[in-house]
Amino acid sequence: MNETASWATACEWMGTLADLQGASAVLEWDRETIMPSGAAEARGAQLSTLAGLHHRALLDPSVGDALEQLRESGDPVRAASAHEGQRERSRAERVPEALVRELTEVSSRSVAIWTDARERGDVSAFVEGIRPLVALTREQATCLANGGDPYDALIDLYEPGTTYADLQPVLDDLAARVAPLVERLAGAGGPALPEREWDGDRQMALASALADEIGFDQSRGLVGRTAHPVTMGLGAGDTRLSTRVDVADPLSSIMAVMHEGGHALYDQGIPEVWRRTLAGDAPSLGAHESQSRFWENHIGRSRAFWEVVAPMLSERFPLSSAGLGPDDYIRALNRVERSTRRVESDEVTYDLHIVLRARLERAMILGDLDVTDLPGAFDEGLHDLLGISPASPAEGAMQDIHWAAGIIGYFPTYTLGNLYAAQLADAAERAVGPIDEVIRAQGMAPFLDFLRETIHCHGRTMSTPDLMRQATGSDLSAEPFVRHLERTYAPQ
Amino acid sequence: MNETASWATACEWMGTLADLQGASAVLEWDRETIMPSGAAEARGAQLSTLAGLHHRALLDPSVGDALEQLRESGDPVRAASAHEGQRERSRAERVPEALVRELTEVSSRSVAIWTDARERGDVSAFVEGIRPLVALTREQATCLANGGDPYDALIDLYEPGTTYADLQPVLDDLAARVAPLVERLAGAGGPALPEREWDGDRQMALASALADEIGFDQSRGLVGRTAHPVTMGLGAGDTRLSTRVDVADPLSSIMAVMHEGGHALYDQGIPEVWRRTLAGDAPSLGAHESQSRFWENHIGRSRAFWEVVAPMLSERFPLSSAGLGPDDYIRALNRVERSTRRVESDEVTYDLHIVLRARLERAMILGDLDVTDLPGAFDEGLHDLLGISPASPAEGAMQDIHWAAGIIGYFPTYTLGNLYAAQLADAAERAVGPIDEVIRAQGMAPFLDFLRETIHCHGRTMSTPDLMRQATGSDLSAEPFVRHLERTYAPQ
Repeated sequence: MNETASWATACEWMGTLADLQGASAVLEWDRETIMPSGAAEARGAQLSTLAGLHHRALLDPSVGDALEQLRESGDPVRAASAHEGQRERSRAERVPEALVRELTEVSSRSVAIWTDARERGDVSAFVEGIRPLVALTREQATCLANGGDPYDALIDLYEPGTTYADLQPVLDDLAARVAPLVERLAGAGGPALPEREWDGDRQMALASALADEIGFDQSRGLVGRTAHPVTMGLGAGDTRLSTRVDVADPLSSIMAVMHEGGHALYDQGIPEVWRRTLAGDAPSLGAHESQSRFWENHIGRSRAFWEVVAPMLSERFPLSSAGLGPDDYIRALNRVERSTRRVESDEVTYDLHIVLRARLERAMILGDLDVTDLPGAFDEGLHDLLGISPASPAEGAMQDIHWAAGIIGYFPTYTLGNLYAAQLADAAERAVGPIDEVIRAQGMAPFLDFLRETIHCHGRTMSTPDLMRQATGSDLSAEPFVRHLERTYAPQ
Repeated sequence: MNETASWATACEWMGTLADLQGASAVLEWDRETIMPSGAAEARGAQLSTLAGLHHRALLDPSVGDALEQLRESGDPVRAASAHEGQRERSRAERVPEALVRELTEVSSRSVAIWTDARERGDVSAFVEGIRPLVALTREQATCLANGGDPYDALIDLYEPGTTYADLQPVLDDLAARVAPLVERLAGAGGPALPEREWDGDRQMALASALADEIGFDQSRGLVGRTAHPVTMGLGAGDTRLSTRVDVADPLSSIMAVMHEGGHALYDQGIPEVWRRTLAGDAPSLGAHESQSRFWENHIGRSRAFWEVVAPMLSERFPLSSAGLGPDDYIRALNRVERSTRRVESDEVTYDLHIVLRARLERAMILGDLDVTDLPGAFDEGLHDLLGISPASPAEGAMQDIHWAAGIIGYFPTYTLGNLYAAQLADAAERAVGPIDEVIRAQGMAPFLDFLRETIHCHGRTMSTPDLMRQATGSDLSAEPFVRHLERTYAPQ
């Protein structure tokens, strides 16, 4: 078989995989936005059937030779596709089907127990609920690791190319630098916006206008409304982002649009011709999160951005926005507070929550921490890092869904996103100029152009560390992020 | 293999088929309602991949024995599932895959030519555009007929259990009875509603309230908005109907809700436990259309229905509805006019358009009418039946998409729906009382109950002729329909 024939074989195979994933994404988008409650069971069955067909298609033995040949191709899209195809196939082969089925089954049971235990504040129910799932996840990690480090094998599911050995020194450095910042800045920022009502439909119209403003192409996507903001790629020309709407707080939706908008711009920036190949995606979740955090925290917290958004708010909410200007919105956004809850944390304290989770989940997977001891270790670690203790059990180890769903190795990607975003913001400012000045003179397009050229257009043809090195000129580092925190939050 | 094991095998197989069809329906619903324009190509690929997987699953050789055994089961759901499964498999086997692919390809080309030709009023482009597709459809019909009548083989795709020999005398009888009625009634009804604006969002709110009113369960479905009204079953607990909104005419959406609502109530009335079997559907399109026409034309044109709806309009549109009462709406609805266009025709003249199309398409399939002669034969037939001639070529043979899309044998199901609906309305009035009186005393629920018991709850366990005979006590007949027309439209 010559390379052209191999590529044709691979493309047909990847097309089927892409179509099945796209179809599943449509089913999920529909479920999150408009699906009637009575359809939950049928939709679950449909998604499970599509997942089964995807799994079978993934392991199709007839493409093995083609992928092996393409691996060495001089064409980066072909090589990357083959590499990713082999990676996914070997992962699927390493984990026995019985274990996959058990993981799915046990994790939905475990999520149900978690939901209930968290509501009742019952730590021991939580511990007993996740114990079997953690054991299965360790088994999965061992299969995947194939003799290597099992926690690295889990990280690799979400962040290929990065190991805990790469992460640990950076996380430790970050924790050491952020701790004194928290000490200094806690209580900074504020006050909150005055208590007023912001009409939900108009917030949705603003969300759509804001998405346009940052460069999101609504002929190839749309902006929807969900309980939890999300971005989904449903196929070429169909990238959807959603926002939540809180009628008491317009900032919640605006920041959700900036965050999800960052993901969505990345998705739209990947060359469409690669869309049905395995090269047509981000190389990792950390790379994806670098885009959402760039728009949310570097553009979305800048003075010039609020000089754009404040008039948009005044126009749509003349009464609710009366007397409020850019600085009022920025002050309300940039409050720093020690919180026990990750999802409610500000930008300064957020990553300490991740550092803690990465340490604990790694210890669980390596067998150094028994699930029984997890809640105590969590509370202790939180106190060490942030100086506070959970007011109730629900605010401790069981606050997140991740562990209850068997999602371990995922937390670090949040912090990688924050660090890479800051490195990219530095590089972007070097390339096109200071954020405030550029936005005032030319709008936000120069930053989108920068990301299009340095990140988006490469798809999965490079590993995340290589991609970021090429875009920013340096290795992973906490330095630019800490500088960003100091600049943004330190009282002037 | 015992019957229990066969049924388990069949259920797993049917579950996969149901999930793939449900997933495709979600993709189609999304496409018709919110999909961004840029996603058209990707969505087409996804639907085609799902269709290919469905085709492959349908022909799965490992279920053949199970179906053969279940065919003779004493359980009607098992027997009906096996019967339908074998029917679909033998159909898929009889038509060579190359022909299926060619049909798909040629029909999308043919639809594109039709769209353009109709716009330009170019009859010969239309004729040349559909010629290859008609030839392929004849080939398909010959494969399906397996020695029998090829037009019957096409009807059987949409209306199993009914042949042209069953239809012809009834259609002829209908044409003969309706002609004098048209003569007598043309110009009856009216005037139209005064020219006012009816807000689109409020029309959608009314559509939802009206769907509730007729008994549509919105915890297991929803009401959406599309350019062309449609009903889709997306799986158990997920039945969706859509309406069009014309801000100049509230009746358009109301009648669309009644029509689609009839389909949707049927879909919701099929026992949910059968949903993932092949018995969990209507036995034919004519059976489905009997439900939409029952609600649209028998309930939806009754005086008592408008006594319910007029106040709903007054409440939501106090200005636009000023001075209008039930009789104004009914008069505006019940205008009788000779139109050359089927889709704009009133209830009295509508079926003459179908009679004409059934005669012509049958002649094409049997080789008695060359495509070249179709436009002339169409105009001539229209003149014979309705006494009018198309004002432009676009209003003649090329007005409908059906022939350009290779959909032949489908038109008769519209008239079957009208005739069955009238037979059911008679039977319902015998069972629960006159429509006006029942609605005034008890609302519309008794009619839904009647249809639930006589039609919906049987799914596909009976053929349409048997189902209708059991529900109405008589064979297919034009008589009740003609009586309905006389009662509804004859000047009092």
